[in-house]
Amino acid sequence: MEGSTKGERKLLLALAMGDPCGISPELTARLAADAQVAGACRLVVIGDRRVFASGCRDAGLADPELPAWRPGGAAPASHAFHDLGHLDPAAVARGAASAAGGAFALANFTTALALARDGALEAVTFTPFNKHAMRLARPDYDDEIAVITETLRAARHGREFNILGGLWNARVTSHIPLKDVAAHLTVEAITAAGLLAARCMREAGFAQPRLAVAGLNPHAGDGGSFGREEIEVIAPAVARLRAEGVATTGPLPADTVFVRARKGEFDAVLTMYHDQGQIAMKLMGFEAGVTFIGGYDVPVCTPAHGTAYDIAGRGRADLGAARNAVLLAAAMAERRRNQFPRRKTA
Amino acid sequence: MEGSTKGERKLLLALAMGDPCGISPELTARLAADAQVAGACRLVVIGDRRVFASGCRDAGLADPELPAWRPGGAAPASHAFHDLGHLDPAAVARGAASAAGGAFALANFTTALALARDGALEAVTFTPFNKHAMRLARPDYDDEIAVITETLRAARHGREFNILGGLWNARVTSHIPLKDVAAHLTVEAITAAGLLAARCMREAGFAQPRLAVAGLNPHAGDGGSFGREEIEVIAPAVARLRAEGVATTGPLPADTVFVRARKGEFDAVLTMYHDQGQIAMKLMGFEAGVTFIGGYDVPVCTPAHGTAYDIAGRGRADLGAARNAVLLAAAMAERRRNQFPRRKTA
Repeated sequence: MEGSTKGERKLLLALAMGDPCGISPELTARLAADAQVAGACRLVVIGDRRVFASGCRDAGLADPELPAWRPGGAAPASHAFHDLGHLDPAAVARGAASAAGGAFALANFTTALALARDGALEAVTFTPFNKHAMRLARPDYDDEIAVITETLRAARHGREFNILGGLWNARVTSHIPLKDVAAHLTVEAITAAGLLAARCMREAGFAQPRLAVAGLNPHAGDGGSFGREEIEVIAPAVARLRAEGVATTGPLPADTVFVRARKGEFDAVLTMYHDQGQIAMKLMGFEAGVTFIGGYDVPVCTPAHGTAYDIAGRGRADLGAARNAVLLAAAMAERRRNQFPRRKTA
Repeated sequence: MEGSTKGERKLLLALAMGDPCGISPELTARLAADAQVAGACRLVVIGDRRVFASGCRDAGLADPELPAWRPGGAAPASHAFHDLGHLDPAAVARGAASAAGGAFALANFTTALALARDGALEAVTFTPFNKHAMRLARPDYDDEIAVITETLRAARHGREFNILGGLWNARVTSHIPLKDVAAHLTVEAITAAGLLAARCMREAGFAQPRLAVAGLNPHAGDGGSFGREEIEVIAPAVARLRAEGVATTGPLPADTVFVRARKGEFDAVLTMYHDQGQIAMKLMGFEAGVTFIGGYDVPVCTPAHGTAYDIAGRGRADLGAARNAVLLAAAMAERRRNQFPRRKTA
C-alpha cells in the first residue's frame, strides 16, 4: 500500500464539505488534488459526489473519482469519498445562503465528527460554512463549538484559536457584550485559556510556546490609573501560568503586543476579548489564516475565511488557507498518534 | 521680505522643543533645516539655544544660528528662536527621564500655547514629550490635553486625533477602564466626537470627510445578540451625524472597519474606546503618524512617536512624522487664516 509517514500508515482525516453555494466545493476539489495535502494525509471527503463534481468543474480539475469509503469499511489507500448522497447541486442557488446548503454542511460536519469520535478518523477539517445558512437549517445554531461539543459528547466546550503563519491568538472571552468582559475575567479563566493554548501549541509542534498575555485597559491600566484588572486578575494568572511551566509575558498593553508578536517576540497572544485579537489578526491578513478549535479529543481545523459567495463558481478561490488548515490538523493528529494509544484507525 | 504663501505672509508657527533627553533636540534641528517645512511656514523654535545646538550636533547639521525673536517683537522673516535660556544640556543625562527634562518641555509648551492664545503665533507644534519626565516635573500632569485647556483658557477639553497618511482615527472615550466604556457612550458623546472630527478634517483639507463609526461589541453586536449599544446608542448617533451633513457609515464591526479604511473606503474611523483604534493604528505603522489635538482655537500637532531614549544623540531619528506634524499644523493654520478675521500676526 502506498502512503506512509515516518514508517506509519498515513494519517486519515475527515474533510467535511462546507456550504455548497460558495467556494467550498471548489476548495474541496483543490484539496483533493493538492500534492502537499496528499503528502501529509489521506482525506475522507464527506459530502455528495455531485457537489464535489461541481467543485472540480469550478476548479478546472478532472474529477478524480475518489474510491468510495463507508464507516466500518477497510481503510482507504489514499483519498476516498464518503458519499452521503444528500444534495443535488442543482437544488441550491449559487451565491446565496439557503436552508438546503446549511443542512448539507451541517450533516457533513456532524458525520465527520462522529466518525472521529468513534476513532475511525484522526482529525476533522472542513471547508467554510455560512452562519446564516446554518441558522436557516437549524435555528438554534450558534457556532461550530456547540455542534462539536454535542457531537463529540465532550464534557465542556472547546475554544477557538486563530492562527496566521506562526502566530496564534487565543482569547479568554468571545461572543459577549464588551461591558461584560471585565466581569468574566478571573484568574482561573485566564489561566485555563493560557494552559489550553500552550497544550494545543505543543501538539502543533511548538516545543516551548512563548505566550504574551494582553492587558484589558488602555496602556494595560497604566499602573492602576485606568483599571485594576491587570493588577488583580491578569498578573496573578500570568504568574500561575509561569508556575505551570508556560513561558508567559504580560500583562502587556494591547495596542503594542501584536506589533511585538509580529516581529517574532511571541508565538501566541492571549487576548481578553474578541475584538482585541480580531482587530489585529484581520489587519495582519487573517483571511489567509487558519481557525483551530481546540480542547477536544479530536483536532478540528478550517480556513479562517468565509464562503465567498461573491466569487462562487469562478475558479478563483485561493487554496492557501484551506491547505494550511489540513496540514495543521495532520500535524496535530500525528502528534496525538505518537502520544496516545492507537485507536482503531487502520 | 522673503516668504509668502498664496500671496500672504508665510504662516508663523510655534515649535516647542520636547524632552531634551531623547531625539527631540535632533528632530528640532532637522525641522529647522528642512526645505518642505521652510516652504510651508516660519517656525519660532521655543527652548534653549544650547539644547538646540546639541540637537544640531546630533543631526550632523551646522547650527543655523536662527535670529532671536521675543514676544512683542517684529515678526521674523524666516525661522527664528525664542530662547528661554532655562536648560544647560550638560545638566541632564541623555537617554532617561528627568524632572529637569520634563520641566524644560513643559515650559516650552506652555510658552508656545500662551503665544498662540494671544495671537502672536498661528499654531503649536512640539517634538516628543516623555510622560514620566512630565510627571516628575509636575506631579499632577496627566496628558497634553489638560495643559492645553488650562493654558489656552479653553471652555472645554479638546480631543486627540491619530493620523496616518490620509486616515484619521478619533475616539469617543480614551483613558478610562474598559469596563466603564459602555456607560460613557451616549448619543450626544458619539455625535459630538463625530462632528468635531468632521470639522477638524475639513480644516485639514477634506472637502467632505467619509466617516466610519465602529460598533462596540463583537460583530457590532450581531443584531443585538452580544450587546445592544449599537442599536440603542451608536446607530442613533450615526443618524444624527448624517442629519448634520457628515458622510457617516456604521456602526461597523470593529475588526473589519480598519481593513476597509486601509483600502480607502473611509477617511476616518470613529472608535468607541482607546485600544479599538490604537491596536489598528499601531499595527498599520502609526509610529510614523501624527497626533493632532483638536477642538481648540489653536491647532496643536506632534509626531505620534515618543522620545526614543534608546537612540538619543545618535543621529538616527527619522524626520517623517515630525515633518508631517508641522505640515498638518500649517495646513490647518492656513485655513483658519482664510476663514477667520486676521489676528495680530504680522
